[in-house]
Amino acid sequence: MEEMLNTQTVRQAWRAYYEADLGFWNHWYPAAWSHEVGEDPKPVKLLGERILLRRIDGRVWAIEDRCPHRRVPFSAKIECYTKDTITCWYHGWTVDFTTGELVQILTEPGSALIGKVRVKTYPVQEAQGLVFLFLGDIEPPPLSEDVPPGFLDPGVAMAGLVREVRSNWRWGAENGFDTTHVYIHRHSKLLKGARRVFPLGFVPSTRYAVEIVEGPGPKGVIDRLTENYIPHFEASIKGTVVSARVVPNPRPVPPPTVSMWLPCWLKVDPWPVEDMIQYEAYVPKEKNTHWYWQVLAKRVESEQEAMIFREEVSALWEDLALRGFNNDDIWAREALEDAYTEGEGWTKERLFKPDLCIVEWRKLASRCNRGIRR
Amino acid sequence: MEEMLNTQTVRQAWRAYYEADLGFWNHWYPAAWSHEVGEDPKPVKLLGERILLRRIDGRVWAIEDRCPHRRVPFSAKIECYTKDTITCWYHGWTVDFTTGELVQILTEPGSALIGKVRVKTYPVQEAQGLVFLFLGDIEPPPLSEDVPPGFLDPGVAMAGLVREVRSNWRWGAENGFDTTHVYIHRHSKLLKGARRVFPLGFVPSTRYAVEIVEGPGPKGVIDRLTENYIPHFEASIKGTVVSARVVPNPRPVPPPTVSMWLPCWLKVDPWPVEDMIQYEAYVPKEKNTHWYWQVLAKRVESEQEAMIFREEVSALWEDLALRGFNNDDIWAREALEDAYTEGEGWTKERLFKPDLCIVEWRKLASRCNRGIRR
Amino acid sequence: MEEMLNTQTVRQAWRAYYEADLGFWNHWYPAAWSHEVGEDPKPVKLLGERILLRRIDGRVWAIEDRCPHRRVPFSAKIECYTKDTITCWYHGWTVDFTTGELVQILTEPGSALIGKVRVKTYPVQEAQGLVFLFLGDIEPPPLSEDVPPGFLDPGVAMAGLVREVRSNWRWGAENGFDTTHVYIHRHSKLLKGARRVFPLGFVPSTRYAVEIVEGPGPKGVIDRLTENYIPHFEASIKGTVVSARVVPNPRPVPPPTVSMWLPCWLKVDPWPVEDMIQYEAYVPKEKNTHWYWQVLAKRVESEQEAMIFREEVSALWEDLALRGFNNDDIWAREALEDAYTEGEGWTKERLFKPDLCIVEWRKLASRCNRGIRR
Repeated sequence: MEEMLNTQTVRQAWRAYYEADLGFWNHWYPAAWSHEVGEDPKPVKLLGERILLRRIDGRVWAIEDRCPHRRVPFSAKIECYTKDTITCWYHGWTVDFTTGELVQILTEPGSALIGKVRVKTYPVQEAQGLVFLFLGDIEPPPLSEDVPPGFLDPGVAMAGLVREVRSNWRWGAENGFDTTHVYIHRHSKLLKGARRVFPLGFVPSTRYAVEIVEGPGPKGVIDRLTENYIPHFEASIKGTVVSARVVPNPRPVPPPTVSMWLPCWLKVDPWPVEDMIQYEAYVPKEKNTHWYWQVLAKRVESEQEAMIFREEVSALWEDLALRGFNNDDIWAREALEDAYTEGEGWTKERLFKPDLCIVEWRKLASRCNRGIRR
Repeated sequence: MEEMLNTQTVRQAWRAYYEADLGFWNHWYPAAWSHEVGEDPKPVKLLGERILLRRIDGRVWAIEDRCPHRRVPFSAKIECYTKDTITCWYHGWTVDFTTGELVQILTEPGSALIGKVRVKTYPVQEAQGLVFLFLGDIEPPPLSEDVPPGFLDPGVAMAGLVREVRSNWRWGAENGFDTTHVYIHRHSKLLKGARRVFPLGFVPSTRYAVEIVEGPGPKGVIDRLTENYIPHFEASIKGTVVSARVVPNPRPVPPPTVSMWLPCWLKVDPWPVEDMIQYEAYVPKEKNTHWYWQVLAKRVESEQEAMIFREEVSALWEDLALRGFNNDDIWAREALEDAYTEGEGWTKERLFKPDLCIVEWRKLASRCNRGIRR
Repeated sequence: MEEMLNTQTVRQAWRAYYEADLGFWNHWYPAAWSHEVGEDPKPVKLLGERILLRRIDGRVWAIEDRCPHRRVPFSAKIECYTKDTITCWYHGWTVDFTTGELVQILTEPGSALIGKVRVKTYPVQEAQGLVFLFLGDIEPPPLSEDVPPGFLDPGVAMAGLVREVRSNWRWGAENGFDTTHVYIHRHSKLLKGARRVFPLGFVPSTRYAVEIVEGPGPKGVIDRLTENYIPHFEASIKGTVVSARVVPNPRPVPPPTVSMWLPCWLKVDPWPVEDMIQYEAYVPKEKNTHWYWQVLAKRVESEQEAMIFREEVSALWEDLALRGFNNDDIWAREALEDAYTEGEGWTKERLFKPDLCIVEWRKLASRCNRGIRR
């Protein structure tokens, strides 16, 4: 199987993925937590674009963060005379936040350009406490096509973090979805504290171990670690035995199902405990940096239960899982960046059997994306 | 008129200006204040060139700041054994500061190269307390061709500042000459303290509002704000009124005449008060940085009056006008840099009627420059 | 003679040298002091390559510092389960340090890739307290071909320093070998303290002053300063006399013989005192930085004498010679970097008679190197 993973043919099959330095075009991306977007415009940067978010009468709107006149960022100095317009600090050009239309120029009131010039606007949707933007040129498909299955289920509370990581977004995806990167987590307190043991690695039992989902609905690849993978707990190097069993009397816990979805979503189900799911998104910011979204989800019966869950995330899981455990992943992505930027990762990498899922993800992403961001 | 400003034809007409990242060649530029140049060589950088200035028996001379041997900067460690030579710290090559000629090599006295090698020299002229250099390959035209009209008038005292600004020189020119950038100054203490009010913007009354001057003598474009421009003091955005009248009982003061001159000079007359003129030069240093010259001028009857004026500039106008007021301009230029370097300002800018003067400046500069610095 | 040094023909003759930004390929280079390499792997970077050194049962081995799987540096987090293997921190790929062979993958024990994948290994040799690596693709010639004559002599003790200098390696070579750069040292305490005087410069007496050695054995160029060079102690600039005689009653000491050897070695014999030799190597690290090796050598009769010599170097010569005197050279190389990188050194340099030795070194290096590092 290793030969199959390292041929020129398979590399051709992920060409689009290889070119997607700045991610895929014509997709929905998470841009901010809902609670971060209020009546003061908030600048964000996704896929290399400067964007401004603002909540008007409860609804969130998004426009390009560049004045159509001389292209300066509005956000360099924000000036708003009404709740639904923004005025450029430089020459007073004023655009409507909901339509992007130029509605006034303070320095030349009644200019002939009014109504004839507009800035780009972005379709916005709020769901599960997140603000999503559509970056593309086509009629946006439903948001449900661009998030993992179950993400939009009602009766689910969500909480978590978003931070910037200094690596290309693909190293986020490939690290999170990789079934042998568990090796880097083997001494994690999250596992030891729960008397849990991870194997050194999970190896696919056949070349069909990875399930491919090409829609309708979300498009992704699924690893059912319990069913189609063989865990390895021990290996020896020239007679020296290396064992994953670093805690006494480990508690048997079945491994989660891990899946990767277009445009950039990971789902780990269940994780970090049996009644929770961890979603992650790796959203391109610039070529060498991405937004790392970590979202924990739990089924709840009431708003009170939701509130208790959010407090639990903040008091416990943020330290133990989202930072304590996942900071190792961040470190690994940044180390991979060097190999694929300074080094010659793309041409010299040598994949092994457990990289099957990464190869399938690269192929699916190349086949099913709606465009490449140039 | 807006259509006229945004055509391909007009863009062709400012092609040379677009290419002049490092400014125009074969022009005079201010390089230092006279009082800064003494008997110790002083290094400066203009239009990407390293240059060394030195005063010898009262007169200022300029040579290239690179030893002809291995091209190291003399200024890395200055060594002068006579008042009119400089010796390279590395191998003792010694050149005459007035001719640029190699006159000795200390490490090989009497070398055959003596008298056969020279460094580049620059024509120098002092006027109004400034040292001017000619950067080019042709016989220099009179200095008076490369400064604004009136600049060399006798009986005028001058004082001010020069500082480095982190933007291309053109954003200095386009900000200073722009008749609607006054919008950024509307809350300035300089105005409020004088109970003066600026309009939100000045809009040209016709397409002939800008006066074009193509010599003989200086070449430039003139905005007579009092005559050919309509000031706007109020505008409304969806019913919300924005007014320029931010002080009670404003004092009526006619606006100045503003003009822009090759290679890179602005003249604001009168400014900041009725008996003064402000000159500004935006001298390219590197592609992304320029020297910002701010020179206040006043007619005086005697050297004593001149001295009083210079003290007044230092005690009052430096804080209130040159820094307090103009620091807003510096900030704006730096914000524009991002739009035209990271962003796509040149291709995506959308000009409006008051940009007429900027378009005329770009066209005149493209038509009348003596060369582009490559 | 000056004309001869500045022709197009002579420039063609050093083309390979001009292209050797990252040094020459298929040569031996010093990589570390022997005492720095122990049982913990030590990362180094030479000629742009990341390499890992390790001592196993007394012998030093070297492998490429990149995991063959995803090309991350092993050294980002070193993990060794046996004394002769290294395990990648990311997915547990484990290679043998002596053969470079993949011997195990902890996350997929028994993988089909074992024995089929290997990392690059480098030939290693220890001599005179230094660890040498061969960087190239050919069967390595004897180490004695790539060090100055006498360097491997038995009965010689060696001690010194290695540091990183922020310039291309060639400015190290050209500064060290240059017979007129002594000008920069004329006020050095090392000389004054010994009542020694250097001339302002040494000028070759004929165009055959430089001895060319093209093997068998080391290839290099030799300046016998005592025999073929004329020292100049005085020169005048427009009547002002500049003299090298800055100490009273200077002690007459014959100047050393200075030579430069492929791939990047300087030999100064004797220096800094009559019974010592100073060797220097300028080993490319990246394009704009090199390792500066300073090695003092002295003939000794016993290990006890060797120990006393090493203590003397550390207590006295390190401060006085290796730092005090040679820090001026480091400064000069860094100043030359700017001239050949920002500036136009290669095309605009104008060589003079004493640069004969530099020209001969450039020509020999271009003629006799075994390849250029790309």
